[in-house]
Formats: sequence, structure tokens, C-alpha cells
Amino acid sequence: MSQALPRYAYLGPAGTFTQAALRQVVPAGECVELPVTDVASAIEAVRTGDADFAVVAIESTVEGGVTATLDSLAGGDPLVIVREMLVPVQFALAAAPGVRLEDVRRISAHPHAWVQCRRWLARHLPSVVHVPATSNTAPAALIAAGGAQPGFDAALVPPAAVEPYGLVALAEDVADNVSAQTRFVVVGHPGDVPARTGADKTTLVVHLPDNEAGALLAMLEQFAVRGVNLSRIESRPIGDALGRYSFSLDAEGHITDERVGEAVMGLHRRCPYVRFLGSYPRADAVEPTVHVGTADADFVEARSWLQAVRGGSAT
Amino acid sequence: MSQALPRYAYLGPAGTFTQAALRQVVPAGECVELPVTDVASAIEAVRTGDADFAVVAIESTVEGGVTATLDSLAGGDPLVIVREMLVPVQFALAAAPGVRLEDVRRISAHPHAWVQCRRWLARHLPSVVHVPATSNTAPAALIAAGGAQPGFDAALVPPAAVEPYGLVALAEDVADNVSAQTRFVVVGHPGDVPARTGADKTTLVVHLPDNEAGALLAMLEQFAVRGVNLSRIESRPIGDALGRYSFSLDAEGHITDERVGEAVMGLHRRCPYVRFLGSYPRADAVEPTVHVGTADADFVEARSWLQAVRGGSAT
Amino acid sequence: MSQALPRYAYLGPAGTFTQAALRQVVPAGECVELPVTDVASAIEAVRTGDADFAVVAIESTVEGGVTATLDSLAGGDPLVIVREMLVPVQFALAAAPGVRLEDVRRISAHPHAWVQCRRWLARHLPSVVHVPATSNTAPAALIAAGGAQPGFDAALVPPAAVEPYGLVALAEDVADNVSAQTRFVVVGHPGDVPARTGADKTTLVVHLPDNEAGALLAMLEQFAVRGVNLSRIESRPIGDALGRYSFSLDAEGHITDERVGEAVMGLHRRCPYVRFLGSYPRADAVEPTVHVGTADADFVEARSWLQAVRGGSAT
Amino acid sequence: MSQALPRYAYLGPAGTFTQAALRQVVPAGECVELPVTDVASAIEAVRTGDADFAVVAIESTVEGGVTATLDSLAGGDPLVIVREMLVPVQFALAAAPGVRLEDVRRISAHPHAWVQCRRWLARHLPSVVHVPATSNTAPAALIAAGGAQPGFDAALVPPAAVEPYGLVALAEDVADNVSAQTRFVVVGHPGDVPARTGADKTTLVVHLPDNEAGALLAMLEQFAVRGVNLSRIESRPIGDALGRYSFSLDAEGHITDERVGEAVMGLHRRCPYVRFLGSYPRADAVEPTVHVGTADADFVEARSWLQAVRGGSAT
Repeated sequence: MSQALPRYAYLGPAGTFTQAALRQVVPAGECVELPVTDVASAIEAVRTGDADFAVVAIESTVEGGVTATLDSLAGGDPLVIVREMLVPVQFALAAAPGVRLEDVRRISAHPHAWVQCRRWLARHLPSVVHVPATSNTAPAALIAAGGAQPGFDAALVPPAAVEPYGLVALAEDVADNVSAQTRFVVVGHPGDVPARTGADKTTLVVHLPDNEAGALLAMLEQFAVRGVNLSRIESRPIGDALGRYSFSLDAEGHITDERVGEAVMGLHRRCPYVRFLGSYPRADAVEPTVHVGTADADFVEARSWLQAVRGGSAT
Repeated sequence: MSQALPRYAYLGPAGTFTQAALRQVVPAGECVELPVTDVASAIEAVRTGDADFAVVAIESTVEGGVTATLDSLAGGDPLVIVREMLVPVQFALAAAPGVRLEDVRRISAHPHAWVQCRRWLARHLPSVVHVPATSNTAPAALIAAGGAQPGFDAALVPPAAVEPYGLVALAEDVADNVSAQTRFVVVGHPGDVPARTGADKTTLVVHLPDNEAGALLAMLEQFAVRGVNLSRIESRPIGDALGRYSFSLDAEGHITDERVGEAVMGLHRRCPYVRFLGSYPRADAVEPTVHVGTADADFVEARSWLQAVRGGSAT
Repeated sequence: MSQALPRYAYLGPAGTFTQAALRQVVPAGECVELPVTDVASAIEAVRTGDADFAVVAIESTVEGGVTATLDSLAGGDPLVIVREMLVPVQFALAAAPGVRLEDVRRISAHPHAWVQCRRWLARHLPSVVHVPATSNTAPAALIAAGGAQPGFDAALVPPAAVEPYGLVALAEDVADNVSAQTRFVVVGHPGDVPARTGADKTTLVVHLPDNEAGALLAMLEQFAVRGVNLSRIESRPIGDALGRYSFSLDAEGHITDERVGEAVMGLHRRCPYVRFLGSYPRADAVEPTVHVGTADADFVEARSWLQAVRGGSAT
Repeated sequence: MSQALPRYAYLGPAGTFTQAALRQVVPAGECVELPVTDVASAIEAVRTGDADFAVVAIESTVEGGVTATLDSLAGGDPLVIVREMLVPVQFALAAAPGVRLEDVRRISAHPHAWVQCRRWLARHLPSVVHVPATSNTAPAALIAAGGAQPGFDAALVPPAAVEPYGLVALAEDVADNVSAQTRFVVVGHPGDVPARTGADKTTLVVHLPDNEAGALLAMLEQFAVRGVNLSRIESRPIGDALGRYSFSLDAEGHITDERVGEAVMGLHRRCPYVRFLGSYPRADAVEPTVHVGTADADFVEARSWLQAVRGGSAT
């Protein structure tokens, strides 16, 4: 009897950057793809059991995923990140067959996509009008649906969305920043933490103690004192009152690293809320700088030394 | 000849929380109201000269304005904040006349509004379906337009949007958090900085030096050493590459306060980019704590003392 | 067969403040008193086995013991502090019988004693000359020895030195600061660390990493992050080159306290040299402030929490 | 009429390291040399007007001057350091003519000198006995005085003391650490601060605010935030009560440097007591590292920028 394929919820439909990220994890056909309409729904699908995993953007300039992802993971039933993937950000200006570049007056685009291609548009189509879209593929779907006038002549879409929707690219690689990329993660249920590879990342959500001057400084020192670098730190209003913030952090290292463990325990002791959102291999495989005295062996040796000192040995 | 009325761009249409914020600044009829479709357009209208001011949400759980506002102010032609206002966040569940609460199966709501009312909905309308709206008033407008089926039976809308659109409230005050409020600001061209009142706030955008471990810690210490508290700190990816952040800050105090001035000069010297986004009275009129040795008089006296020391006087 | 009495080396001879400190620990007759001529010799006597313990000043304004004590303990064979005592600092102006106050022209005094009584002397004997002595009791002994002219008429001596040397007090309580006291410690061989009382002190010697900007700041943060206060910090040149310092520290708490242990392990990992000089009850019995999240129970709970997180449990 | 020669008080008599330091400043014969018996007296002589300057050790492993110098300068009438000099630390084992190395059983030496030569003595004269001296030249003077048995056979003395006292060197360069040196300073009345050379040092005395946790950390951050390095930091008990400390600091830079001035003003505002003890050229002529954004030009530019911002200019 065959094993059931894993089910992945992702920001669909076909052609999104998120789907491209999903394809880095599982080849087409080796999983059940569950396209949903927004990041929060993808994550919720894992919580309800409708999906085994969700693929969502976590650090993005185009997909609009960051804050929704961070907020969805920060609260609710606990989920963890088990993997990350990087997807290059590029756009094609695409239209229905037969449309010519010189005919384009109105372009549909997600606001983030519009911003990404602003300089290209100013140079090549200076008088074009922006018709906001709710996603990167929505205008492709409208064109594909044909029939009624969609209210625009062309759309900025991910390269992977051109062909599935039967569009034609009027121009390719129109994003202004050729090196832009978006970071996606696979979110699943807590369980075995992915094994330490030596080039890992640990994601946390931390609430600062209320009304405590210097609380952010104190939080950062918990990491600095143990030699743990942060590769990402973002604040989000907690939402129950103005002026209360939640911090979403990526620390360099794995939760089983001694220095990471001690720093996280320090946060756990001092902060009202610390949620572990997973340790997983870095997509770029870059190993962290380990400062003097903060390798695992240093911690182990220091523990032996302390035990000897406490036992009355000479030092 | 009469003087031209000031022109205010704001996230319209009628009935939005933003319009409620605008009304705190100028009574209806004493300004030209220029409703626009998004925060970025409101701010851009000031830059292009189409408006004199923009009213936009800057710290919000409902209007979706925060990141767009922060991003729009962080770059582009310089603008400054000249005033802030607080607006209570409440929602009504409203529908066309004749609709009864027990008939409601599908509710249109901006995703943020939906989140704000989640517990009320779970209790009173547990099986209702969310139809995402692009703004808080869009569903009201669709109902008011009548005719074609709008695809939903009721909408979560700001209290001020019920009557203008000819709706009827099926339930009022349905937001879960009764004390929630949103902070709005008036944005205008640089010019005279609003006078110091003693209960002021200074908003800044700061980019951290690249790849410098501890850069965030160092930035916070620029404030801490001068005894300046921060009432808001939010990070935003700069957008040109992953891992580069811009910080948006509210410091307690006025740019003409000695301690604020010295802290901001410290940032200006050490950080690649510092933009002053205005000093203005706090809406809550709370005066900052002035730590020992950080009042203006302390700075003035220290300067005299240093001058004497440099001149060879005994100390 | 009777047990041998413990042998205590101390800065003698009879009548010193150090002997007064020793008497707080063991009544006269219940130990073998071994007077020596300087602090370093007292400590060395323990190292060589000539004494079981040494009683030495560690924080003093009068006995000249501080730096010699710190330096002697910082290097050489390991010794530890097992107890501390406080001795009030007072002086008598004493002379051979028959000398009158109005006859006093030259006063012998240890330089530290001279400084302690400077204001009294300026008021009562403004034209008197200081004859430096090598200890607080040396001039008493010289007077007692009689015979040859000692070169001075009176001496500043500890109250306890007046009678044993057959002197007469011309004036009592002549120290300017009536609340001054000196801290003494009992030094012995490493072995069982005195049990935690809840009001303990831990003494350490730490060398900072060479040429590392901010090394002192970093050292202090090892304590601050774990909520450990320091009640004493003194720097001493290491002696092998200018600009290299050794720090002698008293931390509030016992080496078996979780927060102290973690802080000390942090030092041990980062600093080239850390020597444990003992945990012992505070003479003033003042209990340390335990900051939020730094009690032993907080550490124990955080360890369980981390173990659960590492094992894949939801948080 | 000839100008009076400047008068220098110094720790005499002839042959001391201090005299060697004095000779770096003024050739023999071009000043009035006023030998005194201790560091405090040398400094006091300037205060009373008996001398124009004092030459005293400030960072020493041999002359015993450090704490007395620091304490004498920290209080009392204000004096300042106007120059520093480095003197190599070496010793000769010297004796009266006719004494042979193999006859030496007892050696007189200042305790610091004894420590400096401990390894050489252990190797060459393992059974020799230490006769403590009150200064480095006292035993030379005793030998020179001849007559009565001085109680020792030879002495450890500075090289410059051998010949003036008519001694003979039994062994030269007997100090264990061949690179050791002592730092001396010239102390005078406040007046014109020595001009900035670009390789300067500023000496300060600072009392920390009472009972303020983290006060030392906060003091160090006043320097760190302005990019000022400290080349020396020493704590001294204030003397009025246990647990209160005065810090003696050398900061890299001149009081007229912008970054030094701002840091020192920060201390002046926050600390109960700050005394300026002078800015003067470094004896080693090493220029300080100037961190990004902390050169004088950066401060000047930041002030212009702040002025523009306060005036309402766009940034």
C-alpha cells in the first residue's frame, strides 16, 4: 500500500513565487499542492490539519508575506519552521497574445511588484497607469479568463506565471534590482527539530517586559554576551495596545548549540513571552562566526571547571 | 479675497478611520478633503503638490497603514510629521436595510478588521464566511451601490461609515479589544518645526551601518547615554538586499531638546542614513522622564564647565 | 590526645588592627598566633604550610593591606577566602608615660594613619612633623624599647596597641572619619567552599583579553546579563607591561548560585585568566537583590524548558 | 637679571627612578631639584608653593607611587599633569666595595624591587634573606653612611644609584622582566593646557553615582558611544565608606578633541564628581584610533546638520 503524499498549503494559484519556493522542496507530483489565497490561510491550514506543511514568504520585498507570516506564527497554536528557501525575484511584463508593448496604457500589478519595477516602467512606459492587483498572479488569471474587459492591458507577473496562463511576455526581467530575492520557509508541526548542520538559523518570537526602559538593549545583550549574532530582527506591534512590541528574530546557530541554548534560556527567564519557531539549515549554508570562548567545547569545559570550583578544587 | 483652504489627502472614502482622524485636525468644511485609495498615494499627493497635507495611519492595528506609511516617508522627497492624533478603533456589523443578523452567512471585511473582531464573530456568528475587502469602507460602498449581488450579506465597517452609506447596524462595538486605538499623523512639507511643548515626540528613520555586529546595540546606546527614551522602534527591510534594515523610531522629546539633539547628532555621525521626520506634540500630552543630568540646563552648564576646563581653569 | 590548635599568620605584632580582626574569628588562646611583618608574608606562610590560615586586610584605608593582599592572592599557589570581618578604624595619639601633648613636635605614624587623622592634627597640632613608620605598631614598639632616642615624641596607634606597649594615650579617637572600618579576610587552602547562607560574596581575579577594545565593558556585561551585582571592583596593573590590568571583584552571591555560576563560566570562557578566590558569608549579612528571572528556580525551570524545546515540544 | 630656575619636587634622594624621570624633562643644573621622602609630599610641595612642579610615578611596578599619586591628585587643591615620561625599570645588586657575591646572605630591597628580581635571586642566591627597605635608595644610603652594621650585605638599587653612593655592582640587570618600565608624570598648577599634538592623553578622576546598579557600565558607555578608548582605568576606594569607588582614567585624546569633550561633559552631567587632571602628549607618541564618525570634522558637520534640521530644513 502506498504512503499518502504530504500536503503543502501555499499562496497560490499556479505561477506564484511561493509555488516556485515549494518546487525547491518537493518536485511537482510528489506532494499534494493546496493553493490558498493568503499567507494566514496557508498557516491556518496546518493548524487545522488540512495540510501537513505551509510554504510562506518570511522576508520578502514582493509577496507581501512578511508581516502576515510573522503575525500568524507569533500567536495561535504552536508551529515551527523546518526549512528555508531563497527564490530570485523577477518579473515579466505579460499580456494576452496579440497585445503589443506600444498599446499598453494600464498595467495591473500587486503594489509591491509595481514598486520593484518602477524605474523600468518610468523609462519604457512613462505614462502608464497602475491598476492595483491583490496578488502577483491575479491579473494573469483575469487575462486568462478572457471575455469581459479586465480594465488593463498588461500585467507584471512572476516568470513562472506567463506560460500556465497562456500569456505572452512583452518584456522579461523588468525588476529594477537584479539581485533581489525572497526568503520562504516551510512551516509544520512541532516534533523533531531538524538536525544541526553547522550552518543553521534559529527563529524566535520575544515580547519585551512592559514599560521597562532599556528592555530592548537588555534583550540584545542576552545574545551578545553569549556571542550569538542575529541575522534578522523585526518588531511588530503586539496589537493589544499602542507601544507594546513583539520582536521576531533569527539567531545564527542551532537551538542545540550551547551558546544559543544559554541565550534563549536567558530570554525565557527575563521576558514575558518567548516562542521557539524552529532551528533549520540556512539556505545559503553560511556558517556562523564563533567568537572566542563560545564554541560548544568551551561551554562544556567551563561547566567542568565550575563543578570543580564548587567542589573546592584549586583553580 | 478669501484665503485658499488647506488641502488634505487621506485614505478615503467617507467613513474611514482616517477621515475621523482628519476631523480631529480640521472641522468639516474648513479644508479641501482629497480622498485617495491608499496611504502611499496620500503621501505622494503632498510631494507632487496636489495636497498640502496628508493624514495617514502610522501605528495601527486596523487600517493597514503602518508599513506603507513608514516606507513612504522613509524615502523619496523629504516630508515631515507635524501632528499626531489618536482614534479609537471600533467596528459595526452593518448591512443593507432589511437584512437580519440571523440571515448573515458571508461578511465582507478588511483582513485587519476581521482579526480585530474574531472573538465576537466566533461567539455570535460561528459559521460565517470571511469575504476579504480591500478597505474598511469598500463593502459599505458596494452595498450602497445596490443592484448586482455583492457576494456578501453584511460588513464590518467603522461606526462613521454606517450612516453615510445608508446602512443599518446589526451590531455595534463588535471589536474584541475595547481600548484599541490607532495613531494617525499629519504629514507636510519641511519648514518650521512645530514649537516645543514639553510633551513632544521626534520621529526618525535610521539605517544601520552594514555588516557591523552590534550595530543595533550601538544605535540604542546613542539614545541611552543621553537619557532619551524611545516610545516606538520598528524595523523594515531596506529592500535592496535581504538582511539590511531600516529602523523607524519615535524618541521622547523635541529636536530642540539638548539631549535629543546630541543623540541625533550621534546617529548622524555613525549611521549611513538618518532622516528627521519631525518633532510634534504627543497626542497623549505625556511628558517624558528626564533622567539625572540630561535636562537642557545640565547640558548648558556642562558646556560652560568644559569651556573653562579647556581654558585651563581648575576644576 | 588533644587536637593541634589552628595556626593563624597575621600582620603583627600585638595591637594591630589585623590582630583585632583575628580575635573576631578565634578567641585569644584558641589558636596559635603567628605575627609576621607584612601581608605578603602572612599569605606566604599558608602556602608554605607554616600556617593554616592568614588574616589580612583586603579593603582598607589604614593598614596598607589592600594591594599587597590582592596581588598576593592573584598569583602563586591557589588560596581562597573563607571568611570576612569588619574592624572599626580608630587611632589614639600615644606616647611614653610623662610626655605631654604640648611637648609633641614629631609624630610617628604609618602614612595611611597620618592621612586618616590629618584634620585632627591640623586643628590640634598644626606644626607637628610626620615621621613615617612602616606599620601602625612600629612606633609603639620603638617607644616601648626605650633607650635610644626614637626620633619622635608620640605616635598614632590603634587603640589596642596603647596598653600592651606600655604607652599612654594623649588623645583618643583622633581619626577624622568616625565611621571608617577596614575589611579583613581569613585566607586558607582550597577545600570545601563555605556553605551558602543566602548573604554571600564571591571574590574573583580576572585578567582581561589583551588589546581588546571594550573588554572591560564586556566583562561587566557577563555579570549584568545574569543579574549579578558587584560590590567591589578594583584594577591592578598585571606587572608584565604597562596597560595590562587584572581586576579583583566581589560579586554578590555564592558560587553555587545559578546566576553566579553562569556569570563566572562566561568569564572563564572569554578571559585568559579567572581565579576563584572563594565564596563566604558577608560580614554585614546583607542579602543580594535578586532580579526578575535570576533566582535559582528560574534557571532550573529555563533548563527544563530548553530541554523540552530541543526535544521538539511545542512552546 | 636672570630668571629663576623652575623648582621640581621629586621622590629622592639622588639615584631614584624618579630622578631619572626628572632628568628626561630638565637637564641637571637647569632646575632646582627638591628631593622629598614620598610622593604625597612631592605633590603637596606644589600645592604649598614650595615647588613649581612635582615628578611622580603614576603607573609603576617598582616605585610604590601609583596609589599615593592617584590619591594625592584625586583630592585637595586642583593640580594637573602636563607631561609624562617612561623610565626603564632595572636593578643592580650593589654593595660596599670589597663585598663579594658569594658573601651575600641578606639583601636590602624595597618590597617592589624584591618582587621584580625574585627569579634572578632564586637562581643565583637561593638562600638569601630579604631585609625590607622603605625606598629603592635607602639601603644605598645606609651603606654609604658606613659605620654601624646596616643589617644586610647588599642591596637591590636602581642603576643610577650605584655610583653616587660609592657602591659597587655585584650584578647588573637583575630584574626578571627586561622590558618593564614605569610611567612618571610632571604635575603642576592648572593654567594653559598643553597644546594638542594628535597623540595625547587625558587623565580624569570620576566618582560614580552612589548605589546605582550599573553605574560603572554607564560610565564606560559615555566613552564608548563617542568612540573614545581608555588606556588606563583604576579604581580606588573613596575612603569615606567601604564600597564607594573613585576611578582614575586615562582617555586617548586631548580635552579639545570634540569626542573627548563630549564624553567628559557626559560624565560631568551624570557623575557627582569629575576632576580634569590634564591633557598632555603621550610619551610613546602613539596616535589614537579614531572610529568612524568621531573625528572633529564629523562633530562639526553634525552640528551644522542639526542646526539645519532644527531650522526646518529638509534632510
